[in-house]
Formats: sequence, structure tokens, C-alpha cells
Amino acid sequence: MSEKNLEALFLHNLKDIYFAEQQIAKAMPAMIKAAEAAELRSAFETHSRETQEQIKRLEQIFEILGEKPQGVPCEGILGIIKEGQGMMQDFAEGEAFEAGLIAAAQAIEHYEIARYGTLRAWARQLGLTEAAELLELSLDEETDTDEILSEIAEDAINPEAV
Amino acid sequence: MSEKNLEALFLHNLKDIYFAEQQIAKAMPAMIKAAEAAELRSAFETHSRETQEQIKRLEQIFEILGEKPQGVPCEGILGIIKEGQGMMQDFAEGEAFEAGLIAAAQAIEHYEIARYGTLRAWARQLGLTEAAELLELSLDEETDTDEILSEIAEDAINPEAV
Repeated sequence: MSEKNLEALFLHNLKDIYFAEQQIAKAMPAMIKAAEAAELRSAFETHSRETQEQIKRLEQIFEILGEKPQGVPCEGILGIIKEGQGMMQDFAEGEAFEAGLIAAAQAIEHYEIARYGTLRAWARQLGLTEAAELLELSLDEETDTDEILSEIAEDAINPEAV
Repeated sequence: MSEKNLEALFLHNLKDIYFAEQQIAKAMPAMIKAAEAAELRSAFETHSRETQEQIKRLEQIFEILGEKPQGVPCEGILGIIKEGQGMMQDFAEGEAFEAGLIAAAQAIEHYEIARYGTLRAWARQLGLTEAAELLELSLDEETDTDEILSEIAEDAINPEAV
């Protein structure tokens, strides 16, 4: 196997999202704590549980590949999380705090949507059917979470933030 | 006006995406140069032109708000771009190079989709109808680019990367 073919790239990006999911799992408790609206808190709690499942799915895929689960530092998610934390500080105790919190969460969701979408396409190309199915489950959860957050923002949070 | 209401948050995030678009505009020439497949290069060239239009739209929105166009450092996009550049180095001259290039581009697209979606919702909430329409034009371009890149990856690039 060449070190620069699709299989290698797939493994590299699997390590990237594995690291990213762990960072997200670490960031979630502060986001749950910061959410005052019951709907938003509940959505974050659900997604926190899903994040744990997604980490397990990634570990299953490492096993399918015969590889040890391992992360590589992912500058994308670190930047997105840092930016979200900065917003949480800047808008603390303001009317728009939770609107900003949702924006930060949706930037995280979209990072994951991009990565899971790419990994699913690569798994299919590589004939890794079971891995593709596991990645699709996570992709669907991310897409659903993003839509739920848009609804909560538009129906309940943004009107209160003006 | 409170400094922590939705109008302030909207302006803050407008500055964030204004900075991000400028970073993307800077990153695009290297991505165009790196794309060997004609379809991919053409998609990047189109998106590079769209990026310039998107910057102009953001400047129109600053004008609507009576504000001077100004960026604030956006750690999210800096991390995503840095990660993409790392991938371009690691997979240089490998079979999967262009598959990785598309993955990097789609992570950028999804950051923009998240931001433009949020800004559009906030503009609507704030009654900034013209701004909401401008943001929607950019959001649609980002969504289209993401879909085009998925098609190019699945039809032409991934099969060659194995």
C-alpha cells in the first residue's frame, strides 16, 4: 500500500475526526451548563450522548481496519471551539448569549457534517460497507442536530435576543 | 443599544465572516494551482470569483448597518485552512492528493454554510430584509459549491485515488 492513497487518507481523516469528537465531548458540558432554555439544554444533552456513540462508532471502524484507535491533532476543530469559547466570554450575560451559543454549536456541527460526508464517500469507494454505514449514522445525527438547533434558534432564542 | 444583543452579535459575526472570506480568497490561488483535474480546477476558479462577490455583499451589509467594513480574527477558519495546508503537504504527489484537496475545500464550505445560515436567520429576526437576501445569495452559492465538489469527488477523483 502506498502511503498516499485513499486508504491512507481515510485513516488519516478518521484519526482527525476521532480527535475532534473527543474535543467536542470535552466542550459539551460547558455548553450544556451555559444553556438556560430547557429546549436548548435538552438538545445539547442529547447531542452529548450522541457524541459518545459517535466515538464508539469510530473505534469500531478502526477495528474494521485493523488499526488501534488514535487521534491526530485537528486544528480545524480546535479553532472552531476556541472561537466559540471567545464568543461565550464576550457575550456572557447578554440578551444574545444563547443565540451565540447556538451559532458556536452549529459551526461545530458543520465541521462534523463535512468530515463525516467525506469519510462516508471514501468508505464507499474503498468498499468498506460497514464503515460507510456507521459513518452515515453519525452524519445523519449531525444533520438532525443542526436542523433542531436552527429551529430552536428561530422559534425560541433569536426573538428573545433582540 | 445594549452591547450584547442580537444586533451586536450580528455585527460581530459579520466581521468574523468578512475576515474568513478574505483568508479564503488568499488560500484559493494555491488550491486552484494544486488542482490538476480540469473539472476541479474549474470549480475552484468559479468559487474564487464567488468569494470576491461574497466579500462585496458583506461590504454592502456593513453599509446598510452604517458601519465601516472591518474583520475580526476568526480562529475557526484559520484552523481549517491550516489543517488543509497540512494535508496538502502530507499527501503531495500521492494518488489521494486531490481527494484530500476536495475534503479541505468542503470543510471550508461548511464553515461558511454554518455562518451564512446563522447570519441570515439573525438578519431576518432583526428585520434586515435586504441583508438577509444578500446573505441568502452567498449561502446558496456555498451549498451549490459543496454539492458540486461532492459530485466531482465521487465521479472523478475518488475512483482514481484508491
